[in-house]
Amino acid sequence: MKATLPQGTRDFSAEIVSKRNFIFNTIRTVFELYGFQPLETPAMENLDTLMGKYGEEGDKLIFKILNNGLDNPSKHLQARQELEKVLDGKNTKGLTERALRYDLTIPFARYVAMNFGQLTLPFKRYQIQPVWRADRPQKGRYREFYQCDADVVGSTSLLNEAELTSIYSNVFKKLGIDVEIRINSRKILAALAELCGGLDKMMDITIAIDKLDKIGMEKVKEELSQRGLQADQIAKIENYLLITGSNEEKILALQDLIGGIETGKKGIAEIEFLLSFLPSSVIGQLSADFTLARGLNYYTGIIFEVKAKGVQMGSIGGGGRYDDLTGLFGVPNVPGVGISFGVDRMYDVMEELKLFPATVQTGTKVLFFNLGEAESKTAFGLMQQLRDKGISAELFHENAKFDKQFKYADKKGIAYAVIIGSKELHEGTCMVKDLKKGEQKTVLQTELIITDF
Amino acid sequence: MKATLPQGTRDFSAEIVSKRNFIFNTIRTVFELYGFQPLETPAMENLDTLMGKYGEEGDKLIFKILNNGLDNPSKHLQARQELEKVLDGKNTKGLTERALRYDLTIPFARYVAMNFGQLTLPFKRYQIQPVWRADRPQKGRYREFYQCDADVVGSTSLLNEAELTSIYSNVFKKLGIDVEIRINSRKILAALAELCGGLDKMMDITIAIDKLDKIGMEKVKEELSQRGLQADQIAKIENYLLITGSNEEKILALQDLIGGIETGKKGIAEIEFLLSFLPSSVIGQLSADFTLARGLNYYTGIIFEVKAKGVQMGSIGGGGRYDDLTGLFGVPNVPGVGISFGVDRMYDVMEELKLFPATVQTGTKVLFFNLGEAESKTAFGLMQQLRDKGISAELFHENAKFDKQFKYADKKGIAYAVIIGSKELHEGTCMVKDLKKGEQKTVLQTELIITDF
Repeated sequence: MKATLPQGTRDFSAEIVSKRNFIFNTIRTVFELYGFQPLETPAMENLDTLMGKYGEEGDKLIFKILNNGLDNPSKHLQARQELEKVLDGKNTKGLTERALRYDLTIPFARYVAMNFGQLTLPFKRYQIQPVWRADRPQKGRYREFYQCDADVVGSTSLLNEAELTSIYSNVFKKLGIDVEIRINSRKILAALAELCGGLDKMMDITIAIDKLDKIGMEKVKEELSQRGLQADQIAKIENYLLITGSNEEKILALQDLIGGIETGKKGIAEIEFLLSFLPSSVIGQLSADFTLARGLNYYTGIIFEVKAKGVQMGSIGGGGRYDDLTGLFGVPNVPGVGISFGVDRMYDVMEELKLFPATVQTGTKVLFFNLGEAESKTAFGLMQQLRDKGISAELFHENAKFDKQFKYADKKGIAYAVIIGSKELHEGTCMVKDLKKGEQKTVLQTELIITDF
Repeated sequence: MKATLPQGTRDFSAEIVSKRNFIFNTIRTVFELYGFQPLETPAMENLDTLMGKYGEEGDKLIFKILNNGLDNPSKHLQARQELEKVLDGKNTKGLTERALRYDLTIPFARYVAMNFGQLTLPFKRYQIQPVWRADRPQKGRYREFYQCDADVVGSTSLLNEAELTSIYSNVFKKLGIDVEIRINSRKILAALAELCGGLDKMMDITIAIDKLDKIGMEKVKEELSQRGLQADQIAKIENYLLITGSNEEKILALQDLIGGIETGKKGIAEIEFLLSFLPSSVIGQLSADFTLARGLNYYTGIIFEVKAKGVQMGSIGGGGRYDDLTGLFGVPNVPGVGISFGVDRMYDVMEELKLFPATVQTGTKVLFFNLGEAESKTAFGLMQQLRDKGISAELFHENAKFDKQFKYADKKGIAYAVIIGSKELHEGTCMVKDLKKGEQKTVLQTELIITDF
């Protein structure tokens, strides 16, 4: 039998795990500095919890778990009979009752609803776990990938948006990724809709605008037309999309356009609050971008999107405010705001721009050569001393030729060899060889612990 | 809709995540000090990769993923037609082609087989990931749980067993868990079988002995009898199981019993090597225990099992040597040895014995009170300074009564409050309150950064 991996899934070897953990740990550290606490939910949720939350297309992409005992009906009579019951409608539980997590938001909502009485509000949680989607695999799109979310629920304060913006700024600075954090407010888009055809046109306008980056202005206008907007309305939307300049200039232009509409005023005030409240170190990365729309229709206030500068790459972060997280699970009126990091894309950006520090990859630092049983017993004891000091060390697994042991060190990128042969054993010394410089020195075994590695 | 969790699965809230991560990080650090490198494999494997590897019972407990588009046949005609094809044998792919990881060993074997040419041997990997089993949920047994494995493949050297024993010793010392590391060799059990009815009785003997802890000597003898062993053979096995004393005394007694059998000699030599090679700090925890059998039938040499002292709890670690990891995947003759940590049980032991250090739970350390927009803007800037120093801090989300802000700090176990009202804003000071001691002092805002928290 030939070993293969399911389509759209990946193994992560040591180098990749270390680099990914560098990203995860950076984000985790920042989340915790901001008072966010970890949550982990199971990979499986009840099918009912997930279905109907991601639209019809989403439902199709949820991986469902086959109920037990139903597989292999061609071989097992019982499985066959159970499946026939499913087809006859006599097996009410059907084929599947559980499914794999499709994102982290719905499991979080389910958790908040289940534990609402116990939570201290505002509740700030972060969650870093894989999700699964039965998408057609393609470059950069996998069926298993990590999401990395922070949300605050139970507060309508814009301070939360300020904190989340600051988290974005802080994480990307720590990682060395130069970014533009784009913000807009859904209230501004709502005002635009009021101006052009009414609030019921909001989703049409949002969906079309959301494609601006990908398809360009002319195609957006075509799409708006197909969606039933009139030429004068489309002209206003074009004016809106063409607003440019500094954050202040853009806000002035926007005020002319929608400042007279109540919802528009509120949206502008949200953006102005963030621009006035955040320190200049964050403002430098922040861009009010009224062309930002975000596809998901549950956002109601500030929306975020992060782009890396200097690379061709989709957004590496996004999020926004929503009015009602847990209504679907019987706990209404829990507002919140959240952001998400696109870790796979961040990884690609950091590889492309060579941003991973050399120290990320740890691996073994010192290889003790194996030159016989008595020699290796002494080596074993010394090796434990180094490990107790936090230095990663190995003893070669067998008494082999020097050549073979050097080759092993070379392949594993090990920096130092410690060699104890019969002469050194007798003298109580060891030879320490710097494998990169090719230098070597003899030190007392009792002084190996104070040797610099 | 009421929010519920699937049977046998758990949410982990902040406190539990922190404690579990303390265990994972301790193990991970030790693995890396010993030169083991991380591997992560996908949650899903091809069904073929997993089926037939865990026995008939195991196959039933594997969670299978329903092929796309087959769910909900009562509503969707197409799903119905596809299912009918499955029953007619016309859909050759059937219901399911993928399944969730059942353990970490088979995915590791699949990985080694797929990448054999690229690996530097001996290849030392560790893996800390969840696995899923459709077991009947009960106390302490879950359908999703973490495994935590380290294996060395491509080497028959007993030094690997010595290293793995040392890893066990090191990890449990770091965690403060007092343990007995029991070792035996399958070769000794093979010699016992040769002595009592022949090698073909080995599995019968192993399976019966494996139950000694649970069912006691009399029931083991009954089972041996039911499995076709004669009274004189059972008497020899009883003699074997009754061997007691120090490690040295037990080996002497064992030599009398099976020292004349070639396999027995080899097994004894394996145990003697470990006892003579390992430093006394490890030997103190190590016990040669010839009643140790381990259920899995692929072990061929040294086997391990770890028990915590002072608590009633099954084994918290186990492993052993195997001859052929990847033969099933077309790459024969890859020997190896591995150990596993039972993290869920280790967690329970540490809770029961109160071994988690108080510092494990981090959470927010400083709450900045919110007493107005200008005040909170100043607070926001100061808060960033503390965060840059690595101190976790929050600004209360709204300008609320003191009482409410103190209550929030109390519920979240926050140690310090920093209060900036209009007076402090005017004076350039802030009040720092130690919420545990109830003490407070006024410090200059410029000196908050050098204040001890």
